[in-house]
Amino acid sequence: MGPIKYELIKTCKQTGARLGRVTTPHGSFETPIFMPVGTLATVKTMSPEDLHSMNAHIILSNTYHLWLRPGEDIIDEAGGLHSFMNWDGSILTDSGGFQVFSLSDMREIEEEGVHFRNHLNGEKLFLSPEKAMQIQNKLGSDIMMAFDECPPYPASYDYMKKSVERTSRWAERCLKAHQRQDVQGLFGIVQGGEYEELRKQSAKDLISLDFPGYAIGGLSVGEPIDVMNRVLEFTTPLLPANKARYLMGVGSPGSLIDGSIRGIDMFDCVLPTRIARNGTCMTSTGRLVVRNAKYARDFRPIDENCDCHVCKNYSRAYIRHLVKCNETFGFRLTSYHNLYFLLNLMKQVREAIKNDRLGDFKEAFFEQYGLNKPNAKNF
Amino acid sequence: MGPIKYELIKTCKQTGARLGRVTTPHGSFETPIFMPVGTLATVKTMSPEDLHSMNAHIILSNTYHLWLRPGEDIIDEAGGLHSFMNWDGSILTDSGGFQVFSLSDMREIEEEGVHFRNHLNGEKLFLSPEKAMQIQNKLGSDIMMAFDECPPYPASYDYMKKSVERTSRWAERCLKAHQRQDVQGLFGIVQGGEYEELRKQSAKDLISLDFPGYAIGGLSVGEPIDVMNRVLEFTTPLLPANKARYLMGVGSPGSLIDGSIRGIDMFDCVLPTRIARNGTCMTSTGRLVVRNAKYARDFRPIDENCDCHVCKNYSRAYIRHLVKCNETFGFRLTSYHNLYFLLNLMKQVREAIKNDRLGDFKEAFFEQYGLNKPNAKNF
Ligand SMILES: [Zn+2]
Ligand SMILES: [Zn+2]
Repeated sequence: MGPIKYELIKTCKQTGARLGRVTTPHGSFETPIFMPVGTLATVKTMSPEDLHSMNAHIILSNTYHLWLRPGEDIIDEAGGLHSFMNWDGSILTDSGGFQVFSLSDMREIEEEGVHFRNHLNGEKLFLSPEKAMQIQNKLGSDIMMAFDECPPYPASYDYMKKSVERTSRWAERCLKAHQRQDVQGLFGIVQGGEYEELRKQSAKDLISLDFPGYAIGGLSVGEPIDVMNRVLEFTTPLLPANKARYLMGVGSPGSLIDGSIRGIDMFDCVLPTRIARNGTCMTSTGRLVVRNAKYARDFRPIDENCDCHVCKNYSRAYIRHLVKCNETFGFRLTSYHNLYFLLNLMKQVREAIKNDRLGDFKEAFFEQYGLNKPNAKNF
Repeated sequence: MGPIKYELIKTCKQTGARLGRVTTPHGSFETPIFMPVGTLATVKTMSPEDLHSMNAHIILSNTYHLWLRPGEDIIDEAGGLHSFMNWDGSILTDSGGFQVFSLSDMREIEEEGVHFRNHLNGEKLFLSPEKAMQIQNKLGSDIMMAFDECPPYPASYDYMKKSVERTSRWAERCLKAHQRQDVQGLFGIVQGGEYEELRKQSAKDLISLDFPGYAIGGLSVGEPIDVMNRVLEFTTPLLPANKARYLMGVGSPGSLIDGSIRGIDMFDCVLPTRIARNGTCMTSTGRLVVRNAKYARDFRPIDENCDCHVCKNYSRAYIRHLVKCNETFGFRLTSYHNLYFLLNLMKQVREAIKNDRLGDFKEAFFEQYGLNKPNAKNF
């Protein structure tokens, strides 16, 4: 048995969504779950105590960013990322692949790996499956991700096929290079864009390598929602039922529910903290842009149906004032509420699965959030 | 009896420093005390819970800044500043005078008040004793400050004499304009620069008006430390023993001790939070600039002799990383430590007064902090 375990507790009769439990060396938690993103070894504006108080059990951190700053050796010397950032819950690290393909202008992909330039200072760098494993082994995350190619959307079938095959070869190299299999689990990443045949091939290749969990990559990269949902519908059934399934980069309320319905167990996204820093909040009745003038004298909480610490103690008027003045405490309050909102949404999703009524929950949530309106924003 | 009470508990036999207790409508606390500054209704990066956890009992907020943003009417509608910002401890507000004289380029002082331009958008504004009282009454602070003129340093005797006389007339107008004498206490401000005769005149004028407390203004405006100490030496004896004494704008460790020795009870300053945002910390062995490269692999706490939450859980290496990456959590950690450091310093000062050994404490502290070195920085 490896360090990462997935246990399927129950399937929702109404939707097929999975209630499960993931166990890592730093605890266990029920799924489906949302993972706050702590890019640079901090979930922006949040303390570990804040994260615990909202019942976050697992956070994500970014290999690429930590490789550049402060460098994986410093984190290794600190005793690993948990110790460095004072977080005793679980940590998942991505492989750096996504950032290499999204942040760097100049990159050259070859079989060995990717040459590219550091987005901070333009310095030449090289990332390979072996290097991505070496960094993540030093970070000491509970769940590591295989180094994959993240093709742009849309990409041609031919390009995507070559990419999928390379990602499979890289996955095998990752598995071989992974040095701490007893305490860190490595997930494979199924690619293939919107092509069913390629998703099948990718899933088959990766399953043959027997990872303790599988991510679905290459979604939430600009494609319409119905394309994402369709890809999930034909991809998740390809994955083994006894392993965790992780949909990368998805964090809008609608997509979290849609993904859960299609059999996803884990999600992450910078969305809740990113929009929070712009003064935008998710509420039970939809988006609320708290910096708007109409909230200047509104002494109600951000969300009247939310029981988070922020909504119990602070008004829209106060938070608007802080945000307008660029006071970081304002961003701390909006970030806390948004993260709590998504963690609490997933708790409701798990509850609905237990009661075989996630379909009903979705209908009611979409209606109240405004997602059934024409041209509704997805967050 | 007004809403603000000062009780002298004991005088240090070694130095004459006062141990006392101030009671406001929002609680009571021992003095000498340091008050964290929450300029815009937030102590930058700190939550009210953070402030409580470091045993802050009273904070300062700025009338001028709150007048501009969000405006005193919004705070009044929120039920006052305590309710608006979710702080149930005591609050002292300044009068706006200092900001009018320090932030605004164009200003015209006349008997009625001061014409000047808003530092944010250049709009013409007018502040008078009556207006300063009206705003502070709406803010609902526990301790309000009289509107005074803050002359530059140095200023001529003749200029200072006229200014002191005007400040006394303004103080009388403040007292008349103050509408909530049952729940808010108004302190007078003794001015007079470095001129003993003018300090005497100012103190005499203000004492005749019988304020529940007196501030000493016009110090910490660029004068050398020995000038400040000398002014305190001839000014505090002029003030009644049964009223609190507040030295405005002072927050360096050395000056807090020096001021306490000269009979001061209350201090405020943006120094600890301002330098924190630059990655500079106060420690028991002196200044520590945590962003410096030498701390990149230093896994010790900021201050090995500090028992604050930050020093118990985070390393110099981690905090340096956050500060270098401009992560607000880094500034939250340095701000917390610096505020804790000063609050804890004042606790040690009170303890030393109890034991009649503040002089010994000062000697040991100055030596360890490095303040006895030639050309020592004062913070
Ligand atoms: Zn909330
Ligand atoms: Zn500390």
